[in-house]
Amino acid sequence: MKSVLGLDVGGTTIKGGVLDPVSGEILARGARPYDQDVPAAEIHARAAELAVELEEKARTEVHRAIGVGCAGLFDRQTGEVLASANMQNLVGTSLSGGISAASKGRRVTIENDANTAAFGEQWFGAGRDEPDLVLVTLGTGVGGGIVIGDQLFLGPTGAAGEIGHIAIHPRPGKSEYDAPYDADLECSCGSYGCLERLVSATAVSRRARSRGLTDDLPELADRARRGSGPEAAFLHQVGRDLGAGLATLVTLFDVDFFAIGGGFGAAVDLLEKGALEVLEERRYGTRPARIAPATLGPDAGWIGAARLTLEG
Amino acid sequence: MKSVLGLDVGGTTIKGGVLDPVSGEILARGARPYDQDVPAAEIHARAAELAVELEEKARTEVHRAIGVGCAGLFDRQTGEVLASANMQNLVGTSLSGGISAASKGRRVTIENDANTAAFGEQWFGAGRDEPDLVLVTLGTGVGGGIVIGDQLFLGPTGAAGEIGHIAIHPRPGKSEYDAPYDADLECSCGSYGCLERLVSATAVSRRARSRGLTDDLPELADRARRGSGPEAAFLHQVGRDLGAGLATLVTLFDVDFFAIGGGFGAAVDLLEKGALEVLEERRYGTRPARIAPATLGPDAGWIGAARLTLEG
Repeated sequence: MKSVLGLDVGGTTIKGGVLDPVSGEILARGARPYDQDVPAAEIHARAAELAVELEEKARTEVHRAIGVGCAGLFDRQTGEVLASANMQNLVGTSLSGGISAASKGRRVTIENDANTAAFGEQWFGAGRDEPDLVLVTLGTGVGGGIVIGDQLFLGPTGAAGEIGHIAIHPRPGKSEYDAPYDADLECSCGSYGCLERLVSATAVSRRARSRGLTDDLPELADRARRGSGPEAAFLHQVGRDLGAGLATLVTLFDVDFFAIGGGFGAAVDLLEKGALEVLEERRYGTRPARIAPATLGPDAGWIGAARLTLEG
Repeated sequence: MKSVLGLDVGGTTIKGGVLDPVSGEILARGARPYDQDVPAAEIHARAAELAVELEEKARTEVHRAIGVGCAGLFDRQTGEVLASANMQNLVGTSLSGGISAASKGRRVTIENDANTAAFGEQWFGAGRDEPDLVLVTLGTGVGGGIVIGDQLFLGPTGAAGEIGHIAIHPRPGKSEYDAPYDADLECSCGSYGCLERLVSATAVSRRARSRGLTDDLPELADRARRGSGPEAAFLHQVGRDLGAGLATLVTLFDVDFFAIGGGFGAAVDLLEKGALEVLEERRYGTRPARIAPATLGPDAGWIGAARLTLEG
């Protein structure tokens, strides 16, 4: 079986690699930095160059199609980037069309990078024996993707699975059950009380500071691992908050396996107990939920993108 | 094209009908009451008798397969009822196998009745022009089903879409953002703060009483329609609470159309504004959400069940 090639177009770098789709062995890996100010055509050309370089490195027969993960919203028919926080010059252009044109008409399939990361983790990462997986990445924000029955769940227009924006706390209104308004829970998405406002690396630093704890997350985690002090109690609560989001995913998607990634995902050992506690309280399904660390790190996005070339 | 036959096995009655799958015209309709104490074989026999009666009434050629909606959890491979609140005698037996045996080996497909109701509403009800729909039924509890791209969304084991148990309020823990504990929010599912605890007919009666308003829901709705008094303000808040649940569905499923059914669904005109307000605040997708009353009433379940016979 031919090897497969995937790219992950990030805000400052295009990463990519070539993979054996049977064994999961990584045969080549590479990256091209680019300046955010360069025009779209330049990004397309860099991506096409990287693809050629990776194929040469891999020294095997590589499937001609290219899978691309990219942050942002797309039109799945045309490949047009509709919105992207970090890659303004790509908005309004077809990323798949551009890379295809720059690489002599090779077929290019694009997908959101959070989705390709989930697809990668379910293929050869934390979920390699799991047909169903939700990847939750705890970074600056909270992202992720949903795989059910070995397929990405995209919803009608591909905008499904915005895990970071599951509401954990409702915006206070005139309900007799509301907590007081708290400005910390206002979310950058325009909403309030999103999972991202509670368990992203950014949110956890902020919450730690407000409790008089260190906002250096590796240090916070180390202290929690060493004892049962306020750091451990705080991260247990963060785990419970994460569990509230996961519980909603169980209730609605009937999934039972969660991979936790992103920078703050390194603290999953400290979050797991609290999260499972809430999942046990709230769980509606019949299968016990399980939580594991994501294992592919920065390769997850391009590996899942490469998997896209096997479809359609 | 042959007509299709569906049954809806409820706690005290089997309802059913025959439908033209092209026009949606109802060609026959009928029901058989049964006593909850009768053995499973008796229920299977009543269902098979009703199917024959409906075919005779319909006076057209009817597809031999039978679609069955039923409350409870099933094993989709064997048709075995794993759990059911109202039909204890069916638990541990194969409902599809039993009805099939009682009807000379006709193919029988079963599905959860909330799912078949959603499938019915999307076929010939509120969502007949919508490929994607979530049905939310406001009754004793809150139920519903999710249809995406003209297909039921069932999840890996068929237990997906437990809309009534989306968490709106988290169980108070040691989070700095929690509201105080409120026993009203304890849910019969063992969880806390579920949508069902806020917007089911039962919950709205309870909440109305605690505000000194009438707990007679038609009367409460009439008063709200006549003026802008406390009844209207209260139902606006109930609409906001409903909207919080719908917003989570938009965030995770990227759906944009909601049909509201069930007894208290008759007040959807009073809930819509509050619900849309929250959807507008929280919405993460690109399409504006819409809310409409379910239109098939008690026929939705068997109509959706009949639709199952066209598949597989």
